[in-house]
Amino acid sequence: MDVSVDCALFGFDGEALKLLLIRQRTSEGGPLSEAELQMALPGDFVHADESLDAAAGRVLGELAGLDDVYLKQFHAFGDPDRVKDLKDQHWLRTFREHPENRVMTVAYFGLVSLHDHTPKASSFAGEAEWTDVDHLPELAFDHDDIAHLALQTLREQLKSKHIGFEMLPQKFTLRQLQSLHEVVLDKKLDKRNFRKNIKRMDHVVPLNEKEEGVLHKPAQLFTYDANLTTPNS
Amino acid sequence: MDVSVDCALFGFDGEALKLLLIRQRTSEGGPLSEAELQMALPGDFVHADESLDAAAGRVLGELAGLDDVYLKQFHAFGDPDRVKDLKDQHWLRTFREHPENRVMTVAYFGLVSLHDHTPKASSFAGEAEWTDVDHLPELAFDHDDIAHLALQTLREQLKSKHIGFEMLPQKFTLRQLQSLHEVVLDKKLDKRNFRKNIKRMDHVVPLNEKEEGVLHKPAQLFTYDANLTTPNS
Repeated sequence: MDVSVDCALFGFDGEALKLLLIRQRTSEGGPLSEAELQMALPGDFVHADESLDAAAGRVLGELAGLDDVYLKQFHAFGDPDRVKDLKDQHWLRTFREHPENRVMTVAYFGLVSLHDHTPKASSFAGEAEWTDVDHLPELAFDHDDIAHLALQTLREQLKSKHIGFEMLPQKFTLRQLQSLHEVVLDKKLDKRNFRKNIKRMDHVVPLNEKEEGVLHKPAQLFTYDANLTTPNS
Repeated sequence: MDVSVDCALFGFDGEALKLLLIRQRTSEGGPLSEAELQMALPGDFVHADESLDAAAGRVLGELAGLDDVYLKQFHAFGDPDRVKDLKDQHWLRTFREHPENRVMTVAYFGLVSLHDHTPKASSFAGEAEWTDVDHLPELAFDHDDIAHLALQTLREQLKSKHIGFEMLPQKFTLRQLQSLHEVVLDKKLDKRNFRKNIKRMDHVVPLNEKEEGVLHKPAQLFTYDANLTTPNS
C-alpha cells in the first residue's frame, strides 16, 4: 500500500476563513482540459525515511515556503477505493508509476495568519490558490471529506484545545479574536459574552499597547501565551 | 510501506480501568524465551480490500469475539523505525515475510463494559489478558506510546465528547458513572458537584427503576441516550 499525507491549510485574513488548494497538472506541466482540471489539497507520498509529520511539513515547505506552520495530524483516510474514480485515475496515470495502487493518506490541518502577508503558494503540483471555505469547489479524490473533517476538527478544537491563535497576528485585538471565532464557528457571537469568556482565559494576555494607524479609537492589544493555557475543567 | 491497525481496547469492571494486551508468540505457537516475550496491543495488517475501520473491527472480532464495539481511530503512528528495535525484529522474523519493511499503523481505541461478563480473549497472536492500566508492562514496538495517547484521548473525550457510557452496563447508577469518571481521570470527584453536572446532561436519562439485589439502599437507575447529547457550548 502507498502512504501519503494531505494538508488542509487554513488561513484567516481578518475577514474570511480560507483553505489552500492546488490545481492539478501533469508532471510535464501540460494542462488538462477544463473538464479534467480538478482542485485538490496539497499532498505527497511519504518518503522512505521520513516520518508522517516531516512529510506534511515538507509538503507545505515546498508548496508555500512555509517552514514553521502549526500542523496537526487529525485523521487517516483508508477507503480501499479512494483514488479509483475514473477522473482521478486519469490524472494519476499521467505521472504515477502505479496509478492503480491503493493509497492510504494521513490528513493534517494547518493554521496560518494571512494578516501581514499571504504566503506565496507556488506548487510542484500546479498553481495554488487560497479559497474561501464557503465557496469550495468539488475536490479530487476524497478531498471533500478530508476538508470537511478538517473544518469540523478546527471548530471543535478552537474551544476544547484553545487553538486558532496561529491564524492571528502576534498582537491582536479582541475584535480580531472575535471575528476569527465567528468565521470558524460560522455564527455571530455576542460581544459582551465573548469578552467575559476571554477574560477567564489566562493564555490571552493583555499587553500595555494599543493598535496603531487605525481611524477608529485604537483598541488594546493582546497576545497568546500557550504556556498559560487554562486546563479544561 | 505496510499498513496495520492496532487497537487499545479499554474495559471497566466497576472498579478498575483495564486494557486488553496480547502475549506475542511465534506463528508455530512455539514459545519465546521469557526474556523475549513481550506484551503488545492487538493488531494486524490491513487487508487489500479492507477499510481501516473494518480491519480494526476484524482484529477485535478475531481476538475476543467482540462484534459491536465502540471503536474510534485516534492517531496514525509512522516513525520510520518503529518496528526496527532488535527485540521486535527478533519476533517479526519468526513469521513475517518481510520483517525489515517499514510499517505504519493506524491506532484505534475501543470501549467495552466488563460488568456483566469479561469477553473471552483468545487471540490468533497468543494469549490475551485484561491488564490494569495502572500496571502496564513495557510493550512491544511503540505500543507504549500508542497506549499512552489512547488513554489521554479517552480522558479528553470523556468530557468533550461524552463518551465512556459504552463501559457501563446499559442501566447504571450515578455511583457507577462517577466511579468510571474517577478511574479514567485518575482523581476523586466531589459527589455533589458531579451529580449537579450530570443533572444538566440531557443524554443521561433517569429511569423509573432501581437497582436490584444489592445490600445497601437501592439507587435509581439511569441510561444513556446518544440522541439527546447536549451540544458542546
